[in-house]
Amino acid sequence: MTTITESKLRAFAQQVFTKMGCSIEHAVLAADVLLKSDLRGIDSHGVARLKGYVRLWEKGRINTQPNIKIIHETPTTATVDGDAGLGLVVAPFAMDLAIAKAEKYGSGWVSVKNSNHFGIAGYHALKAVEKDMIGISMTNASPLVAPTFTAERLLGTNPMCYAFPAGKYPPVVVDMATSAAANGKLEIAQRANEDVPSGWVQTKEGNASTNPNELKDGGALLPLGSDKAHGSHKGYGLGATVDILSAVLSGANYGPWVPPFVAFLDPPTNPVGEGIGHFFGAMRVDGFRPIEDFKDHLDNWISRFKSAESIDEAHKVIVPGEPEYAAEQERRETGIPIVDAVVADLREIAEKFKLEFPA
Amino acid sequence: MTTITESKLRAFAQQVFTKMGCSIEHAVLAADVLLKSDLRGIDSHGVARLKGYVRLWEKGRINTQPNIKIIHETPTTATVDGDAGLGLVVAPFAMDLAIAKAEKYGSGWVSVKNSNHFGIAGYHALKAVEKDMIGISMTNASPLVAPTFTAERLLGTNPMCYAFPAGKYPPVVVDMATSAAANGKLEIAQRANEDVPSGWVQTKEGNASTNPNELKDGGALLPLGSDKAHGSHKGYGLGATVDILSAVLSGANYGPWVPPFVAFLDPPTNPVGEGIGHFFGAMRVDGFRPIEDFKDHLDNWISRFKSAESIDEAHKVIVPGEPEYAAEQERRETGIPIVDAVVADLREIAEKFKLEFPA
Repeated sequence: MTTITESKLRAFAQQVFTKMGCSIEHAVLAADVLLKSDLRGIDSHGVARLKGYVRLWEKGRINTQPNIKIIHETPTTATVDGDAGLGLVVAPFAMDLAIAKAEKYGSGWVSVKNSNHFGIAGYHALKAVEKDMIGISMTNASPLVAPTFTAERLLGTNPMCYAFPAGKYPPVVVDMATSAAANGKLEIAQRANEDVPSGWVQTKEGNASTNPNELKDGGALLPLGSDKAHGSHKGYGLGATVDILSAVLSGANYGPWVPPFVAFLDPPTNPVGEGIGHFFGAMRVDGFRPIEDFKDHLDNWISRFKSAESIDEAHKVIVPGEPEYAAEQERRETGIPIVDAVVADLREIAEKFKLEFPA
Repeated sequence: MTTITESKLRAFAQQVFTKMGCSIEHAVLAADVLLKSDLRGIDSHGVARLKGYVRLWEKGRINTQPNIKIIHETPTTATVDGDAGLGLVVAPFAMDLAIAKAEKYGSGWVSVKNSNHFGIAGYHALKAVEKDMIGISMTNASPLVAPTFTAERLLGTNPMCYAFPAGKYPPVVVDMATSAAANGKLEIAQRANEDVPSGWVQTKEGNASTNPNELKDGGALLPLGSDKAHGSHKGYGLGATVDILSAVLSGANYGPWVPPFVAFLDPPTNPVGEGIGHFFGAMRVDGFRPIEDFKDHLDNWISRFKSAESIDEAHKVIVPGEPEYAAEQERRETGIPIVDAVVADLREIAEKFKLEFPA
């Protein structure tokens, strides 16, 4: 484990994106999205992904000089073509558009095609919160999740995020994969050589499993709910909702046709759309009630939930977004811890691009 | 079990609402919402609830002559005060407003306060689908669900619904409680005198339980995901999202302050808002891409998921909304089966209002 200050890591990520051919503006933006993830403690979606982006770029699957454009529009809705750009720059373009529409008409909704991995959903939704709006963001992803009653991997972990501005408290941020567990949690178990709980994965035949390497053997992640008796059809329904809003609505690939995030797997040869898809929304809170009334009541909501009596000595009741906010405050001060495997990846990138690695 | 034709049951429900003081127009509408639930096989939310509505009305908690009005508005957002009316008439008013805004500006979003139980979420979202829009509906509800790490009942089963218009297939309708299991499933187990799966409820101390009567002893329903290891914080986050959009945004009661649906429990004496809250949205599909393109691709999506190979001989892979659609086709022909306990309730109502019961 190596700890690197935010500013050094940010500068490094910017240089990498510049070397990939991004404009300064895009490199700064892409690094900002990655760093937000590292700051918020979502290590799987921060600079740990740089190597993956570089590899996809080397394969010609990421366009670092994209012409991102609006291809369909009404006053409050739009579809954006990301031109195969980094999701890290396509998504902020689309979210800014949703926010601009909301400023004028109360709400704005943007579906995106022809994009790539967009980092953490929370980054984008929080942009709306800064403007006293409710922010919504979601994306589809490489197929790893099997719907209820099948062993076929037909959906991604398809995260959805809803973020709300509070008053004296940090924003409420619900940012979640629609699978029972995200892939990052399997990777942690793999590194620790430990089993995972039953209900996270199944074998390629569709049988229960606790093997964290199951996906490599053709197995699948399970939807939130894990099995039918516990509501896996609901997790499947949520993943389907994200897929339809992000891709069927925009013209991106959906379901099993979503291109894999890893460069060593080729995209399907029979695409049904372009790239992967996202969906963003922004609603002005004062389109519904005065912002101060909303914030006062959300503070009251937060206060009530935070003060609920815990049944677990080791854990207090948590308000969604609270741990990530706490991590962000801490890591801004103390730096960002990077595990050895990621440090090695980053050094390799530094060498490739003849950059100095900051640790 | 007694089977009653749709038209007879509908006429009976209309008469009951008229006797409660509803206008003809409202009685027809309220009965339509209830019947849609019975037709779609969601028996817990259909005429089985009539007795509950009558009791709340007798207690003065439902206003059958409401002055439903818009109290705050932008071109695409609004807040509606339901004037303590039946949710069955307040919700359609709000959804129609969302649809009208979407027709003009591409999307429309309406938060509602001072309402009551609104029937099935799917009824409202499907109104948008009829107009080739994406429909969204949600509501908060009496607190029965304990967030992760507490035994306190702070959230309702807070359902959310997303509905999408398809081409040759029925609409995709994701209509789900954000708890692991809805209360209706506990009632079925109670009647059958059977245990429920672990992960649906916990005791009032927060311990695991399989007792379907646990709620009567102060226990709680669990969020979708059931426990922390399986993502109960996600189900809790979804329930929180519904609560904030429906009530913190509108000025309704939220969290533990939501008034109970049952007349024998009094509402909290320290309300933080008025009545219960709902949230509705409508987005024109052609605000994003031509409707025929969307429908063609959604048909392709449906076809792919329907044809996924099943790992369970007893169950095919299901597209969200498929079983409810099938039930509706069947019950329109064969009538609606009503369990004896509900028949007894309906006879009692008939007697009270000097109506003829149709079976």
